[in-house]
Amino acid sequence: MNKFLELALAGVQQLVPYVPGKPVEELQRELGLSEVIKLASNENPLGTGGKATAAIQASLPELTRYPDGSGFALKTALSHKLAVLPEQITLGNGSSEILELVMRTFAAPAHEVVFSQHAFALYPILTQAVGAQARAVPAKDFGHDLDAMLAAVTDKTRVVFIANPNNPTGTLLAANAVERFVAALPAQVLCVLDEAYYEFVDPAVRTESLAWPLRFPNLIVTRTFSKAYGLAGLRIGYGISSLDVADLLNRVRQPFNANMLALAAAEAALGDAEYLDETLAVNNAGMAQLTDAFNSLGLEWIPSAGNFVSVDVKQNALPIYQALLKKGVIVRPVANYEMPSHLRVSIGTERENRIFITALSEVLRGV
Amino acid sequence: MNKFLELALAGVQQLVPYVPGKPVEELQRELGLSEVIKLASNENPLGTGGKATAAIQASLPELTRYPDGSGFALKTALSHKLAVLPEQITLGNGSSEILELVMRTFAAPAHEVVFSQHAFALYPILTQAVGAQARAVPAKDFGHDLDAMLAAVTDKTRVVFIANPNNPTGTLLAANAVERFVAALPAQVLCVLDEAYYEFVDPAVRTESLAWPLRFPNLIVTRTFSKAYGLAGLRIGYGISSLDVADLLNRVRQPFNANMLALAAAEAALGDAEYLDETLAVNNAGMAQLTDAFNSLGLEWIPSAGNFVSVDVKQNALPIYQALLKKGVIVRPVANYEMPSHLRVSIGTERENRIFITALSEVLRGV
Repeated sequence: MNKFLELALAGVQQLVPYVPGKPVEELQRELGLSEVIKLASNENPLGTGGKATAAIQASLPELTRYPDGSGFALKTALSHKLAVLPEQITLGNGSSEILELVMRTFAAPAHEVVFSQHAFALYPILTQAVGAQARAVPAKDFGHDLDAMLAAVTDKTRVVFIANPNNPTGTLLAANAVERFVAALPAQVLCVLDEAYYEFVDPAVRTESLAWPLRFPNLIVTRTFSKAYGLAGLRIGYGISSLDVADLLNRVRQPFNANMLALAAAEAALGDAEYLDETLAVNNAGMAQLTDAFNSLGLEWIPSAGNFVSVDVKQNALPIYQALLKKGVIVRPVANYEMPSHLRVSIGTERENRIFITALSEVLRGV
Repeated sequence: MNKFLELALAGVQQLVPYVPGKPVEELQRELGLSEVIKLASNENPLGTGGKATAAIQASLPELTRYPDGSGFALKTALSHKLAVLPEQITLGNGSSEILELVMRTFAAPAHEVVFSQHAFALYPILTQAVGAQARAVPAKDFGHDLDAMLAAVTDKTRVVFIANPNNPTGTLLAANAVERFVAALPAQVLCVLDEAYYEFVDPAVRTESLAWPLRFPNLIVTRTFSKAYGLAGLRIGYGISSLDVADLLNRVRQPFNANMLALAAAEAALGDAEYLDETLAVNNAGMAQLTDAFNSLGLEWIPSAGNFVSVDVKQNALPIYQALLKKGVIVRPVANYEMPSHLRVSIGTERENRIFITALSEVLRGV
């Protein structure tokens, strides 16, 4: 029994931390494997981009200095690229920190927080951490049921999370449906539109949401450099909001929450169109490769707009996950998302996908 | 008027963010200066260490991956070096994040938080952010008055901050005085012993506090790689506590709060005895250089155990600070610490110190 548990805040007492994908080194240590394929954390399979690497190299001698706490250069670059004001931007230690800042700024135990069933696991965790009440709304075809979510909003609701595309289902909401939802929300309900996987969405069906916060000042759009821009290891993401909300989030964040190399690498990555193009090409080809294989194996999968796909293995997925581990392939079980027969597989390189498909075929055949 | 201010939590509404030292680039932009000397943020003047640089280089290709959320390698290295258990360690995005985690885990609006006058500015800010009540205890000779701080502890006190050495005064508490203080605290009061400047203290008078949390389970000792280890830009620090407290802090932190390059560089820096030795030698020589110069100028200064020294310019220090800026020298005004006639000067290289001394002499002579 933890002797300090009863001294902790009520929300913290019930807190069960997020379980990350298993690191490659950990599996290698455990099983003594020489090669491990990790398709478990929706990471970019291309390796660090050349421009980001060069920007980091140039900053290395300066690491004894604190980062620029205002993030001047990165905010300027984002402002130009995204057609938003620098003052609308809040930089975070990953976009997950922006989600956390919204909660720490606005949500208390008296409040309710609305999100969808099967939505990103951090939403209930962050709700729990501040002691607010979670309202998980049943999903429709694995995606957000926006009408039901709107109906779940009460006088006590302070924050609503929308993940688009959603992780781990990959489901995509139509832009006009999201816009109608945001417009219908009461003005005192903060809406976090989590677009961590935005760049992977087909441009024809993207939600061009960054202009919305000036019309809907309760909206915060979050994006990240961890996925398409390939900088998960450095922890850098951002929120775009109304000036008033950004002002408050920037008061609550630590003065040096974004590190120096993350700032430099993100700015460089933003200008590396070649890397982003290759990322999207590899992702599209890999998505076809994996879903074709699932079809051949007679497995259903959820159509995904992200860099991952969840597949139904038609049985308890945990033993399948464990059998794949023994073959040196890490994917993600999603029983904690109320999807016990699914595995979420991140899109890898052609070779990684092939190794995974072979391993999965063998496991399903009991080999 | 911020339209969302009244929706923010009560503590956040009153929050005034920490003001960092002026970045070099900002001053260069403003005044068009080619060379700027920054002695404003207690940074290591040697530049990034060779072992840290090499460790970062080796990790660059992996940046598309998330960091190891358990910090296995760095915790193992710290555990060996510091003779603590890995499970006693909480890694932070700077040690400032550990301070914040303690507050977010344990402190609520009903609680009081005790710290000293002239102590690190983040203590009142973090207290404000969670809406708790600050109890700033008058200092004695610019240092902590531990008897008065103990007397300020009430049934409502949940956290006490002790900075040793303290920033911005540099004052050092005797080890046995700190130990007596911690032993006398009620068991339900968390004590944060902030040792960000520990490595700069003369080994003969250091507080060997890391063994204490197993005897005093309400004690959290925090240290950082930002100062003597020269990694401020990367944001990495840690807390050493009882297992129970570490368990709770690790539940509240974000799963990937410490970035991959910070983990790798810190582990390498921990084994770079040569860099640390040179850091301490440069600091000792620079401290003598600056204090000799202050004596020559007839200025009083506060004896400091850190890598900085606060000097009394015997007038409002702000115009002096601004005149130094125009000469391309950034130091830190500390009026916000109730020390309006002092400037805090970080120890630089011999050359940087010399340029600062010349500039200060000129400014004081009205040149």
